Amino acid sequence: MGATVCAAVEAAPDMELVARIDAGDDLAQVAAAGAQVAVDFTVPAVTEDNVHALIDLGVHAVVGTTGWTDVSRGRLVAHLGRKAAEGTSVGVLIAPNFGLSAVLAMTFAAKAARYFESAEVIELHHPNKVDAPSGTATHTAGAIAKARAEAGLGASPDATESGWEARGADVDGVRVHAVRLRGLVAHEEILFGNEGEQLVIRQDSFDRVSFMPGVLLGIREVVSRPGLTVGLENVMDLS
Amino acid sequence: MGATVCAAVEAAPDMELVARIDAGDDLAQVAAAGAQVAVDFTVPAVTEDNVHALIDLGVHAVVGTTGWTDVSRGRLVAHLGRKAAEGTSVGVLIAPNFGLSAVLAMTFAAKAARYFESAEVIELHHPNKVDAPSGTATHTAGAIAKARAEAGLGASPDATESGWEARGADVDGVRVHAVRLRGLVAHEEILFGNEGEQLVIRQDSFDRVSFMPGVLLGIREVVSRPGLTVGLENVMDLS
Amino acid sequence: MGATVCAAVEAAPDMELVARIDAGDDLAQVAAAGAQVAVDFTVPAVTEDNVHALIDLGVHAVVGTTGWTDVSRGRLVAHLGRKAAEGTSVGVLIAPNFGLSAVLAMTFAAKAARYFESAEVIELHHPNKVDAPSGTATHTAGAIAKARAEAGLGASPDATESGWEARGADVDGVRVHAVRLRGLVAHEEILFGNEGEQLVIRQDSFDRVSFMPGVLLGIREVVSRPGLTVGLENVMDLS
Amino acid sequence: MGATVCAAVEAAPDMELVARIDAGDDLAQVAAAGAQVAVDFTVPAVTEDNVHALIDLGVHAVVGTTGWTDVSRGRLVAHLGRKAAEGTSVGVLIAPNFGLSAVLAMTFAAKAARYFESAEVIELHHPNKVDAPSGTATHTAGAIAKARAEAGLGASPDATESGWEARGADVDGVRVHAVRLRGLVAHEEILFGNEGEQLVIRQDSFDRVSFMPGVLLGIREVVSRPGLTVGLENVMDLS
Repeated sequence: MGATVCAAVEAAPDMELVARIDAGDDLAQVAAAGAQVAVDFTVPAVTEDNVHALIDLGVHAVVGTTGWTDVSRGRLVAHLGRKAAEGTSVGVLIAPNFGLSAVLAMTFAAKAARYFESAEVIELHHPNKVDAPSGTATHTAGAIAKARAEAGLGASPDATESGWEARGADVDGVRVHAVRLRGLVAHEEILFGNEGEQLVIRQDSFDRVSFMPGVLLGIREVVSRPGLTVGLENVMDLS
Repeated sequence: MGATVCAAVEAAPDMELVARIDAGDDLAQVAAAGAQVAVDFTVPAVTEDNVHALIDLGVHAVVGTTGWTDVSRGRLVAHLGRKAAEGTSVGVLIAPNFGLSAVLAMTFAAKAARYFESAEVIELHHPNKVDAPSGTATHTAGAIAKARAEAGLGASPDATESGWEARGADVDGVRVHAVRLRGLVAHEEILFGNEGEQLVIRQDSFDRVSFMPGVLLGIREVVSRPGLTVGLENVMDLS
Repeated sequence: MGATVCAAVEAAPDMELVARIDAGDDLAQVAAAGAQVAVDFTVPAVTEDNVHALIDLGVHAVVGTTGWTDVSRGRLVAHLGRKAAEGTSVGVLIAPNFGLSAVLAMTFAAKAARYFESAEVIELHHPNKVDAPSGTATHTAGAIAKARAEAGLGASPDATESGWEARGADVDGVRVHAVRLRGLVAHEEILFGNEGEQLVIRQDSFDRVSFMPGVLLGIREVVSRPGLTVGLENVMDLS
Repeated sequence: MGATVCAAVEAAPDMELVARIDAGDDLAQVAAAGAQVAVDFTVPAVTEDNVHALIDLGVHAVVGTTGWTDVSRGRLVAHLGRKAAEGTSVGVLIAPNFGLSAVLAMTFAAKAARYFESAEVIELHHPNKVDAPSGTATHTAGAIAKARAEAGLGASPDATESGWEARGADVDGVRVHAVRLRGLVAHEEILFGNEGEQLVIRQDSFDRVSFMPGVLLGIREVVSRPGLTVGLENVMDLS
């Protein structure tokens, strides 16, 4: 992932790649090279230390590593607050997903949810995936459930009496189906229905290069967003 | 359904509607009116008696009523054989589904099945349906499983370790997912995958009028097919 | 359409149908019956007079009739302004489309447009439609083109050298394809692509009853939105 | 393509790779190495000479190179006939497309065509493609048109009066639409409609590795099919 990000930054006309950092390298090199923004795709064990070091160096950070918790994010917020009090404005963006189509699909699904009687999610992946349903689908279903609850909608109508095993997993009351098919990569389809109409939002990720437009967008946006931002959708203009 | 069939026959340029029979009417009227073919959309309790009576009258029959078993079909075959031995050639077509798109989807799926590493079925229906998965989807999955077995294919690849409830029902080793959504009627999507490619066969039934082309096709074909034929696909030219 | 709206209002637990107005009826009946909101699905020739009369009666209006222009809408704004100055707050909602799925598809497409290298629109309708592409598809493509221009995106990449007639209509630089197929009603599919990813927003209208949730939403919202609002998306919570 | 085929053959449990031939190599090596079957993915300028040489060597051939004409295929048939008369049975399979999903989609479309009032084709490709519509889509539309004509069907219903440029290319009376979208590879969607129903056959090629199952199938089948076979569908069991 690191190499793909470096290539994307080098190819971007409005960016310059000034340093490549490997496991074990001294992060001070980042600041020494004059970097405004650092991108962290590392591993859960080191990402928090990395980001705190970057904040100390006054370098903005775009983070794609997983494993963050409310507690570790809270420590970031506190650190960023202390730096801001000292007059140093640093921005950190943590995004669990840099795929624009995936982020938009989830965001639109959450907005649409309150306007439909029925909602279900189908995720489709390659057959080597060990968990089901996918994190993205679970997250999407959770957001739909939250929006429905806020709008006072109950459960989607369902007269099923037999054959529940075909009706998918129940994620906060929203049915989620997982398809595993050789040839596929990562795909999600969100279906909404009212009497006489259907809205389908479908997202296809064919390749990890699809994350690069999102990473570049994060780099461009994080410099003007001091403090912690979680989720790529929060640096996108979707109002 | 009876009224819809009568209207379809009346509108067909190559057919004439000569009799309408209601529950309790004497079937002899059918022959008296000069009918070559009778269409039976009745109920399981009476359909077998109807068809035997039609065979005795020398009238071909197109039957959309459910409830037939191997035993009751065997009685038809025997009766048709006796008539044939007497020199009277009568054809009977029993079809569980007259939707051309549904029948073609199932037929194509069975033919395609042996050529793909992975296969899954998604059926989508209105939320008032009480059973899952649909009979059509179960039938389709069964046909796929049979074709895979005949071709020596094992189960579709699947590394799932957790979250099985999202992976749908297991029909003879083929995963079947059931979606229930307000606004939908009856739909089926069959997915096949190999490394680098996917084949999807989708079928949508929006309205019961969609059964009429299949009923008319059955009427046209049954007159030249003595004996019992089961399944609309067996009077279609799909070789 | 009028009958369908009346049935929908009668079925809504939070509404009461107090008057049904036919062509030629006196609109004063609306106020006399105690209506808070009137719904106008009439014809271009009379809709403007109707709405001005409703404003004078102090009745909010939800309008689905087409034929409004900048000039006629301007006259509404002026009239509403005079009433407001007199202390009477009236709301008017004019919506070219009350289908929630259609309105959401267009709105989401406009938001997504700036984030993708490629965008195209496919609309699919019954074969009796005389114009192509559909108004909804043209409107959607226009909104995509506008969002792309604002974001500084040029045309979608396209190396086509021969066979332009297969590439659809050019609507402000966005390709729009029109499919006509027996069995379909009104459907729209909006495709966005980046390297390695795709986002598809699809909308199906199977029946005019699908407009009713949008009409009811308009009725609920117009009472608290004085002045003129154009477009159902502007009374929806999509921020 | 050659390297991909070699890798696929090496990975197949029922095959052995005995020779790799490059441009300029002597084809006699193929027979010398004990090959039963040779696979030719070369260029139009040399493929015919290659195949004639292989026939003389008594080696079966699977050919994916384009550029064959009725005349050059006629020369193959004559050569194969002379060898057969001499007692040497050689099989040659020329296939314009080795993608199983593409071949099946075309084959099923041709079979389904006579049963539907409406038919249209949408092909979707990466935006670097210079021609539209794709050869596969043109071939599919032609096969649909032929099947419709044989069944006595006229043109699909179409009331379009304005906006023809959105209605796609006319291939033998069947409308074909070409979408160009970054992120896509090669995809085809064939839509059939009757009153109240739709059948959609969709095919996705994500990667050229998708041709390998078809090449392997060709290798397995060509050994028992003396003479010339054109089209992978003719060595598949689709009856």
